[in-house]
Amino acid sequence: TTNTSSSSFRIHSSSSPMIEKEIPQFEKPSTFLRESEGDTSPNSSTSVRARFEKMIREAQDTVCSAIEAADGGAKFKEDVWSRPGGGGGISRVLQDGSVWEKAGVNVSVVYGTMPPDAYRAAKPSSGNADLKPGPVPFFAAGISSVLHPKNPFAPTLHFNYRYFETDAPKDAPGAPKQWWFGGGTDLTPAYLFEEDVKHFHLVQKDACDKFNGDFYPQFKKWCDDYFYIKHRGERRGLGGIFFDDLNAYDQEMLLSFATECAKSVIPAYIPIIERRKDMPFTDRHKAWQQLRRGRYVEFNLVYDRGTTFGLKTGGRIESILVSLPLTARWEYDHQPEEGTEEWELLDACINPKDWI
Amino acid sequence: TTNTSSSSFRIHSSSSPMIEKEIPQFEKPSTFLRESEGDTSPNSSTSVRARFEKMIREAQDTVCSAIEAADGGAKFKEDVWSRPGGGGGISRVLQDGSVWEKAGVNVSVVYGTMPPDAYRAAKPSSGNADLKPGPVPFFAAGISSVLHPKNPFAPTLHFNYRYFETDAPKDAPGAPKQWWFGGGTDLTPAYLFEEDVKHFHLVQKDACDKFNGDFYPQFKKWCDDYFYIKHRGERRGLGGIFFDDLNAYDQEMLLSFATECAKSVIPAYIPIIERRKDMPFTDRHKAWQQLRRGRYVEFNLVYDRGTTFGLKTGGRIESILVSLPLTARWEYDHQPEEGTEEWELLDACINPKDWI
Repeated sequence: TTNTSSSSFRIHSSSSPMIEKEIPQFEKPSTFLRESEGDTSPNSSTSVRARFEKMIREAQDTVCSAIEAADGGAKFKEDVWSRPGGGGGISRVLQDGSVWEKAGVNVSVVYGTMPPDAYRAAKPSSGNADLKPGPVPFFAAGISSVLHPKNPFAPTLHFNYRYFETDAPKDAPGAPKQWWFGGGTDLTPAYLFEEDVKHFHLVQKDACDKFNGDFYPQFKKWCDDYFYIKHRGERRGLGGIFFDDLNAYDQEMLLSFATECAKSVIPAYIPIIERRKDMPFTDRHKAWQQLRRGRYVEFNLVYDRGTTFGLKTGGRIESILVSLPLTARWEYDHQPEEGTEEWELLDACINPKDWI
Repeated sequence: TTNTSSSSFRIHSSSSPMIEKEIPQFEKPSTFLRESEGDTSPNSSTSVRARFEKMIREAQDTVCSAIEAADGGAKFKEDVWSRPGGGGGISRVLQDGSVWEKAGVNVSVVYGTMPPDAYRAAKPSSGNADLKPGPVPFFAAGISSVLHPKNPFAPTLHFNYRYFETDAPKDAPGAPKQWWFGGGTDLTPAYLFEEDVKHFHLVQKDACDKFNGDFYPQFKKWCDDYFYIKHRGERRGLGGIFFDDLNAYDQEMLLSFATECAKSVIPAYIPIIERRKDMPFTDRHKAWQQLRRGRYVEFNLVYDRGTTFGLKTGGRIESILVSLPLTARWEYDHQPEEGTEEWELLDACINPKDWI
């Protein structure tokens, strides 16, 4: 169902000496971990790095299969890449399907050294005051996905689950190694169907409640706070769950929690798509969807930590920016009239609600 | 030819307490300067602030008239606004014309206090090491314009001329007042017509040469360096002139130079539009134009100092983001084939040329 393209990166690698080259691969390795830590046997003593990689690669397969099945025709195109210093990734993109206009599901496993300013973008504040702002060797693995449907009544979905480890900072060799989990799943409709949003949030809550009763209310609020387009005074969409820098719990529990969240993506999303994908719509609906896609671009390029971190650290640009919609629109000073369906959606983006 | 809309800002002002409210005005004042400095009589002892405001307001009228004439039907819509602490602006936007899909020509006169981080965004480096990074009261006046045509063979034009003054920093009352000029005019085609680019650069060079033979080569290179999309390794377009923090010359000379540059916009641009606006094109040409518009969005939201400064200081969002195209497109990993017309344009964006 996938094919590997080999002609990628020609322009980037020849013109951007600042950016570490990604090397296209023709075959998927069984692990992107460095040899010394590449133990992927399924016993419980396997490293968290290895088990997290296994989880995100399985989630990528599951989500892509479900999307292809629901789209009913289009197939994901796959790019496999590696980096000279270790690590790599698998980018899968479905473009111009019957249901989705652009759907990206990427996994990556990256070793690197964070410059202090990129480090701040990735993790601007937390309780880890013992981490110095000097260059920090890190390990990051994650799955990241944005699914933009064609039908303006079918919502965009984003999810991302990631595991981060730092080595001791180079200028503070005695400092302890740090780890944390981050992630979330959130829904961005152009039109508000309460039953969709309730279903979506209920699935998120169920996943959270299996682990900690505080998670859903806490991560729901975190999501509303995170996806805030400050210069607009509005959120990108209608939220879901979001968490970051999570390490104040048992590491095994958090690994299981992230796994559960990733498994909840399809049951949270596909039932909504099935209800909306064939609804008739007009040019007005399409134009409003496009304006909301413009807001999506604004959030991702200006505020999103993953995107700004990726742009600063020289990640694979096409993988990072696959989150952007196929098409977007900016009309000058567009204001939906009070009481319209467009206004209702915007109002819910300005004033987050409790959906459950 | 213009009408004033009064229903603007409803959503922003109610939801963004961080952002200083702009107040819609029904009539244009003769000056946005504070009363004490509002002397606009044409004698040579009038302040640079007053004469710069007069220049940009005349340039706005001239450019808008020329664009309306070339468009042959559509008219600019005007929004006038003021800010409680003094200052204000006139935003003019033409949307969905026959030639231009979106054309914005804004003037603004703003008094404010720069927070240290916004100050760095506005002026990250210069020889003014005597300026402390504390809160700095400033005055800024400028004209800013982006003109996005419909036809993929007709280039986008951007120009911006601005004058900046700081008062003494609040925590350093004895520090000298600073002033500088900034600006530029640059061309962003989706397809490369050498005669267009040569004509455009020649008009810029002529304007520069009237004042200083070093200006064109220096400001041409500055433009190529400034409009660089670092994460892509390519420039937004094919350049022009750009300068910033300019104060190492006679202030009167620089005021005349900025005036000459603003006057050169129409002769540099309209002849190109006349040649290209009715050229037949295909879906392929349109899709490539839309991809290049996506790059325009990336540059403006991620790198442009005016945009990032505006978003941080809470400027009028619709005026700041009017620079974004009406529509844009992001295809995953799109690479034009070597030797095609699309590749030629991209090559010129990657490797800047001497056009004269």
